[in-house]
Amino acid sequence: MAWEKLAEDKKARIAASIPQIWRLKSTPTEDSVMDYPEKSGIMTAEELAMTESSATDLVTKMAHGQLTSVAVTTAFCKRAALATQLTNCTLEFFPEMALARAKELDESFKNTGKVVGPLHGLPISLKDQFRVKGLETSMGYVSWLGKLDTENSVLVDLLFKAGAVFYVKTSVPQSLMVCETVNNVIGRTVNPRNKNWSCGGSSGGEGAMVGFRGGIIGIGTDIGGSIRVPSAFNFLYGLRPSHGRLPYAKMANSMEGQETVHSVCGPITHSVKDMRLFVTSVLAQEPWKYDSKVIPMPWRQSEADAIKTKLGSGGLTLGYYNCDGVVLPHPPILRGVETVVSTMKKAGHDVFQWTPYKHEYAVNLINGIYAGDGGTDIYNTLKESGEPAIPNFADLINPDLPKIDMNELWDVHLKKWAFQSEYLEQFRLAEETLGKEIDAIIAPITPTAAIRHNQFKYYGYASAINLLDFTSVVVPVTWADKSVDKKQEAYKALNDMDKTVQAEYDPEAYHGAPVAVQIVGRRLTEERIMAIAEEIGRLLGNEITP
Amino acid sequence: MAWEKLAEDKKARIAASIPQIWRLKSTPTEDSVMDYPEKSGIMTAEELAMTESSATDLVTKMAHGQLTSVAVTTAFCKRAALATQLTNCTLEFFPEMALARAKELDESFKNTGKVVGPLHGLPISLKDQFRVKGLETSMGYVSWLGKLDTENSVLVDLLFKAGAVFYVKTSVPQSLMVCETVNNVIGRTVNPRNKNWSCGGSSGGEGAMVGFRGGIIGIGTDIGGSIRVPSAFNFLYGLRPSHGRLPYAKMANSMEGQETVHSVCGPITHSVKDMRLFVTSVLAQEPWKYDSKVIPMPWRQSEADAIKTKLGSGGLTLGYYNCDGVVLPHPPILRGVETVVSTMKKAGHDVFQWTPYKHEYAVNLINGIYAGDGGTDIYNTLKESGEPAIPNFADLINPDLPKIDMNELWDVHLKKWAFQSEYLEQFRLAEETLGKEIDAIIAPITPTAAIRHNQFKYYGYASAINLLDFTSVVVPVTWADKSVDKKQEAYKALNDMDKTVQAEYDPEAYHGAPVAVQIVGRRLTEERIMAIAEEIGRLLGNEITP
Repeated sequence: MAWEKLAEDKKARIAASIPQIWRLKSTPTEDSVMDYPEKSGIMTAEELAMTESSATDLVTKMAHGQLTSVAVTTAFCKRAALATQLTNCTLEFFPEMALARAKELDESFKNTGKVVGPLHGLPISLKDQFRVKGLETSMGYVSWLGKLDTENSVLVDLLFKAGAVFYVKTSVPQSLMVCETVNNVIGRTVNPRNKNWSCGGSSGGEGAMVGFRGGIIGIGTDIGGSIRVPSAFNFLYGLRPSHGRLPYAKMANSMEGQETVHSVCGPITHSVKDMRLFVTSVLAQEPWKYDSKVIPMPWRQSEADAIKTKLGSGGLTLGYYNCDGVVLPHPPILRGVETVVSTMKKAGHDVFQWTPYKHEYAVNLINGIYAGDGGTDIYNTLKESGEPAIPNFADLINPDLPKIDMNELWDVHLKKWAFQSEYLEQFRLAEETLGKEIDAIIAPITPTAAIRHNQFKYYGYASAINLLDFTSVVVPVTWADKSVDKKQEAYKALNDMDKTVQAEYDPEAYHGAPVAVQIVGRRLTEERIMAIAEEIGRLLGNEITP
Repeated sequence: MAWEKLAEDKKARIAASIPQIWRLKSTPTEDSVMDYPEKSGIMTAEELAMTESSATDLVTKMAHGQLTSVAVTTAFCKRAALATQLTNCTLEFFPEMALARAKELDESFKNTGKVVGPLHGLPISLKDQFRVKGLETSMGYVSWLGKLDTENSVLVDLLFKAGAVFYVKTSVPQSLMVCETVNNVIGRTVNPRNKNWSCGGSSGGEGAMVGFRGGIIGIGTDIGGSIRVPSAFNFLYGLRPSHGRLPYAKMANSMEGQETVHSVCGPITHSVKDMRLFVTSVLAQEPWKYDSKVIPMPWRQSEADAIKTKLGSGGLTLGYYNCDGVVLPHPPILRGVETVVSTMKKAGHDVFQWTPYKHEYAVNLINGIYAGDGGTDIYNTLKESGEPAIPNFADLINPDLPKIDMNELWDVHLKKWAFQSEYLEQFRLAEETLGKEIDAIIAPITPTAAIRHNQFKYYGYASAINLLDFTSVVVPVTWADKSVDKKQEAYKALNDMDKTVQAEYDPEAYHGAPVAVQIVGRRLTEERIMAIAEEIGRLLGNEITP
């Protein structure tokens, strides 16, 4: 069958998965669809309240019998149906399976008076890399359509054991190697706050879904910003844990087996509180007993407490940078970093300027790693169906591009290791000068606020952190504001990439777009960085006090 | 200069590094040189006692001012000088530098009344992969001779901070990829217990040195048995930690940058007590702040205590196997496993038969990984000087052998990951059946007792564990005994490799050779496996009670 036909068929199946009563009567014409759930008349006031609550509150209420999983799941299924129709963020929607599962959980609770686990009854949305037995994982590739999974990804299994309910799998860009979300199966996913903006990528479907509150905790993956960019573009929190903290086994992927820079999975949430609920719930399942790549490292409350202790005495020591030396962020992002810096200083924390160490070198190195097989893996997957490459990365999958040779790869490994260790030395040297430990670095995650379609060009703010395998939590900060974020007309670009990125800024077009920063810590510092991100969010006023 | 000349020059320099008064008057003719230190007249009774003590006792005495580092260092330098002359185990010997360092430490202690760290004053021997500023790291390659290191390996730096004294770097086989120790620079290192037996490899110089008590703690590396085999062949304890536990940065290596299976470093000691001293001392230096590959995981006393608790109540649950399904071990090894099994059963522990899972598949997979670049890296290093390949692996470095292609490598990564995760599943399934946690697996580490030269053929008992990245501690058990370890004449070999290995057994030739087992645990279980190894050693009567 022609690839276009297969894609049409899939789109029809997605549309058909939405019950008649949840379908839109008309397509809204506004740029933002954020107020649509209330306007639609499809959701009850209780359902709106549930979806605008927190995962932590919902599981608490379900554990006390104050809410049923069927009620909560129904609410999220409805809102996810709306998100699907309004932002085109969905590749698989299965409310019937979800409600059957919710009913089972409710019955179990009724019979035993006990929850099956810490996520009992909670709907969790999944990026379409996660395999759920009996469903499709197309990852937006036409050639993968119609193949039903015969087993669950390990994380799906463990979340299931913890009591989660699955109901939707969300869209990704073809190949996953792009920070926007567009593929030949369902086309483009848009930002629920403005259809002219990207929802980010590659976990862009999750970004749009959770941003719209069609999901309360979404799970994405990140090899070069793919959790953090959608979090930033949708005013959400996102965790890129270090490799080995959370299980990735039995997931679908592009360039599977590439291990020079690992893709990792992590949550996209509305609060650090919910992020912690997710991480502690997964770690309580001892994922290292299922996935050999997971480090046997349970949740370390002592690490989180170390930050709390500092908050109560003397304060944090935070580095920051607003430019990596390659591309200067747009004015809204510069203001975002400055807002966090001044907020933290005002609260008594020690904030100093961090000099990014060889980021350009790092970005070039990781770009070479992404292109390690000359695009062969992706090329072959496209060839199977005959679908074309999406324009965003078409130049990278020419089969005539050379592959890295084994000894060249080993050289890349050595360069990566040396760079990582040199970066650690930068920390040590700075700590010697400061006479104290550095708790985190505040940095841009993208050079732009939620970007206009097809304009995402510079991945370096995200990908340098992937090369370092540092832990990073995205914190939403503010919104682009044309009245203050003026274009710097006299700016002299650092290089061609910088020039391209600067040219994209238009105060009018970006007005109101979400602005975020990332909070970065050394490898495997999830507990600490989450605690710091929570405090920053609290001080900014966009995070509920724990 | 011809490679032979460079090698001669190096040998002359090693010989010259031994002070006249420590030189042998005559070459002993006996097979074993174990009693030579006492017979030589070179060492005092006090020096003999110090070298026959434990590292733990020595650091305690130095910390209480009951011994000086100069005295201890002198004793080990003398004994190392003897080991060098009797077993040919040394590539760098630098007693002057060591004694200057020891003097500094003694003065510091005298002035401050404090030790600089937990290893204050303790001599530690290093495999010749560790770089020490100002010295050579030839690793037995002629082409690397004469190049002085400009910086220390990270582990050397951290041990230095902990108070260690360095005095010797020991020999390795050319390329490191062999479990015996022979190179074109100094030739072959022999087993101090019998010059007809191998000292093992690739950390064979360490095995001979520590076995002879020219060292009390030696550090080796292991990518396919290279710590464990020399430990086994010299009646020593050896730890192969999981990757990421101890630092490897800035060390010399063959096939540097190959990361599909990581080489790791670890201690070779006379007791688990000394092993623990080493590991806790290194972890106390926070190696993860220096080497990006090290996991931020301090010493977990709670994990060691979990084993202690089990010893006090209910006992351990231990699997065992005496054959991996590929090669049946020689009779002394079968008896070694049986000795441990019956000892543990008698002590009330639950010991059950473990079925090795797809070990042949694992061994084939890892052999393909070792040969990933078709031997290019090693071939090029040999070509530089013109030295020939040692016979043990000459067939593996033909430059016409194909390299793995990038996409093939990714496929290997996936196979490795799947195999590792399937092995974890075997643990889970067995634990379900048993209704309790498995604490460790008892297994052979080699199919033979300390082997005759050039006869090491089958690496699978060691290398399957490397592929799994499991933690393993070698425990010395007993000695081959011609009166009980009879050749099984009627045995029908499983395959050609098995036939070759069986043919090698000769009760007479192996009489008295060290026999060991390895105690294996899941990834990053160092504290637990060390505690179990200690208990096994205690019950066997070859480990001092802590």
